[in-house]
Amino acid sequence: MSRFLILADGDFGPMTSKTANSVIRYRPDQVVAVLDRARAGKTVEEVLGFGGDTPVVGSMTEALALRPTEVLIGIAPQGGRLPEEWRNWLAEALDAGCDLWSGLHTFLADDPMLAERARAAGRKLRDLRRPPANLPIASGAAKATEAFRVLAVGTDCNVGKMTAQLQLVDELNQRGVRTRFAATGQTGIMIEGWGIAVDAVVADFIAGAAEQLTLQGAEGADVVLVEGQGSINHPGYSGVTLGLLHGSCPDAMILCHQASRQYIGDYRKASWLRIPPLTDYVRWYEEIGAMVHPTRVVGIALNTYDLSEDDARAACARASEETGLPATDPVRFGGTALVDAVIQAREQRLALR
Amino acid sequence: MSRFLILADGDFGPMTSKTANSVIRYRPDQVVAVLDRARAGKTVEEVLGFGGDTPVVGSMTEALALRPTEVLIGIAPQGGRLPEEWRNWLAEALDAGCDLWSGLHTFLADDPMLAERARAAGRKLRDLRRPPANLPIASGAAKATEAFRVLAVGTDCNVGKMTAQLQLVDELNQRGVRTRFAATGQTGIMIEGWGIAVDAVVADFIAGAAEQLTLQGAEGADVVLVEGQGSINHPGYSGVTLGLLHGSCPDAMILCHQASRQYIGDYRKASWLRIPPLTDYVRWYEEIGAMVHPTRVVGIALNTYDLSEDDARAACARASEETGLPATDPVRFGGTALVDAVIQAREQRLALR
Repeated sequence: MSRFLILADGDFGPMTSKTANSVIRYRPDQVVAVLDRARAGKTVEEVLGFGGDTPVVGSMTEALALRPTEVLIGIAPQGGRLPEEWRNWLAEALDAGCDLWSGLHTFLADDPMLAERARAAGRKLRDLRRPPANLPIASGAAKATEAFRVLAVGTDCNVGKMTAQLQLVDELNQRGVRTRFAATGQTGIMIEGWGIAVDAVVADFIAGAAEQLTLQGAEGADVVLVEGQGSINHPGYSGVTLGLLHGSCPDAMILCHQASRQYIGDYRKASWLRIPPLTDYVRWYEEIGAMVHPTRVVGIALNTYDLSEDDARAACARASEETGLPATDPVRFGGTALVDAVIQAREQRLALR
Repeated sequence: MSRFLILADGDFGPMTSKTANSVIRYRPDQVVAVLDRARAGKTVEEVLGFGGDTPVVGSMTEALALRPTEVLIGIAPQGGRLPEEWRNWLAEALDAGCDLWSGLHTFLADDPMLAERARAAGRKLRDLRRPPANLPIASGAAKATEAFRVLAVGTDCNVGKMTAQLQLVDELNQRGVRTRFAATGQTGIMIEGWGIAVDAVVADFIAGAAEQLTLQGAEGADVVLVEGQGSINHPGYSGVTLGLLHGSCPDAMILCHQASRQYIGDYRKASWLRIPPLTDYVRWYEEIGAMVHPTRVVGIALNTYDLSEDDARAACARASEETGLPATDPVRFGGTALVDAVIQAREQRLALR
């Protein structure tokens, strides 16, 4: 089994290191340490509120003593470029026999020093945002899978689409429904070990990448949960969202929303558009999805991390009343309502054959 | 003024060389010759039915005797790779002082021989599908332009969106409306000399590229006509279409359709979806565009090249009746109805300020 060292120097925290935190949440047994000089000496649990006794260390020497097999870059460095210190740490890790996984926009393999050190050590540089060669132009072929396809869709970026789906995988499998998660972003790829960062492919191939991923995820599965990206009304990213919707041909969708968010983009302090009612999104995703394949929203996943428990329960009740659909925060209150909805929708689809 | 030699070896014809033909149609005075060994000795008019006495030549030596300043690659070679003969011709042209313009997926500048010859001759290799660096993430900023923004939208790829808009530019300018065309594809870029191939940018930046182009096209203009791409319900390319729609924030749209086409993709012998009624497209583009900026379809441009004149007029009348909008084939019957619609929509918008 892989043993991950997560590099999050200077920025490890509940709100600042989304990639690191998700890997810790969903692959806790595989993470041997987090490297962050600012929080060295603490445990992951002390920093994040979950993650147990996994140590935060302050140097690569300490980290390598824990015998990691892969170093994952778990945050984006300030300014986007790899700091000199990180490059040296990564070179040390290569020498010690680690592979490197990165979701940065600039590729590790394009760094001549790291490329040479990887070659010399016989190790791999996995740039997760590097698109695979020979992606197809999508043709709607994903609609032919035996597996029932479920796409997460959202009201904005960063509302919890990946998390919502990952919360359902285990319960679906436990209930006898063979379920796979198809990752479309760097964090999902780190967790699952495979996938395509669809926002990094050339525009013509967004739907093609989604189609290829969906076909792959559907193999041997009863249900494939396709990770969503962006939002259909996001001024910057809607093209990625629509390519994913039309390329993956979902039979059903789960609509994800952060209950307290009022404006698209305000999580990054750029308020672009007021988020319309959930019922607008349900109508939009269903009608726009149906241009290529009939589909419907079967449940609402709310992210309520910043609400009191009472407020969170009230938000779920309100979302359910507004839309007539089951609504829950699958992290806080469990995903059973959504698992039920997916199973029921799949059975209805099977009954129609 | 530029003097273009268009390379279309083996494939110059009415249906096979879209890029070459459009450059000839809209920049006839700048084209000095077409190179196609299969049709050497004919005139362009004899091959296409338009384009006058411009010669088709059979060798680079003949072509260079006509003193071109730029060689434009006007077709995609079979299999996508540059044939050895083409590479040698292009090297000859560089030596003779020509710049090279290419819209191919593989970049001329990545060919070491051509790169070296260009450097030695002090000439430029313009790879039109190479995205500019530092594109922004779109934020809806295009909606702030003084210029009235008009996007062409379509029922499929290759229905005549670029042509529809180019047919309007001269008449709008003649009627005192300062109008610019903002190119989003390789052919439009060759005709205008600037633009961004939005389908070649990384997916995250589709709308950002459209925003940047729209802002640039709007400078000093009363109207900016933004070239459309794909279709909102195209299984392969809808993401590009939506990024362009949300990034360019059109005030008005012209819906383009090939009157005889029944299935998306059937121009390339892959029938993916039956094309729904035009009224569905009008509703979709208006509602989906309005997620970011209020917009409406103001006219229908039909491509009727394969219909008799009677059938073409009947198709325009039917489209107009169905949608309640002016409809014309702007190549065959002139674009006045669409020019009127754009001017009227702009005046209404100005009156609301």
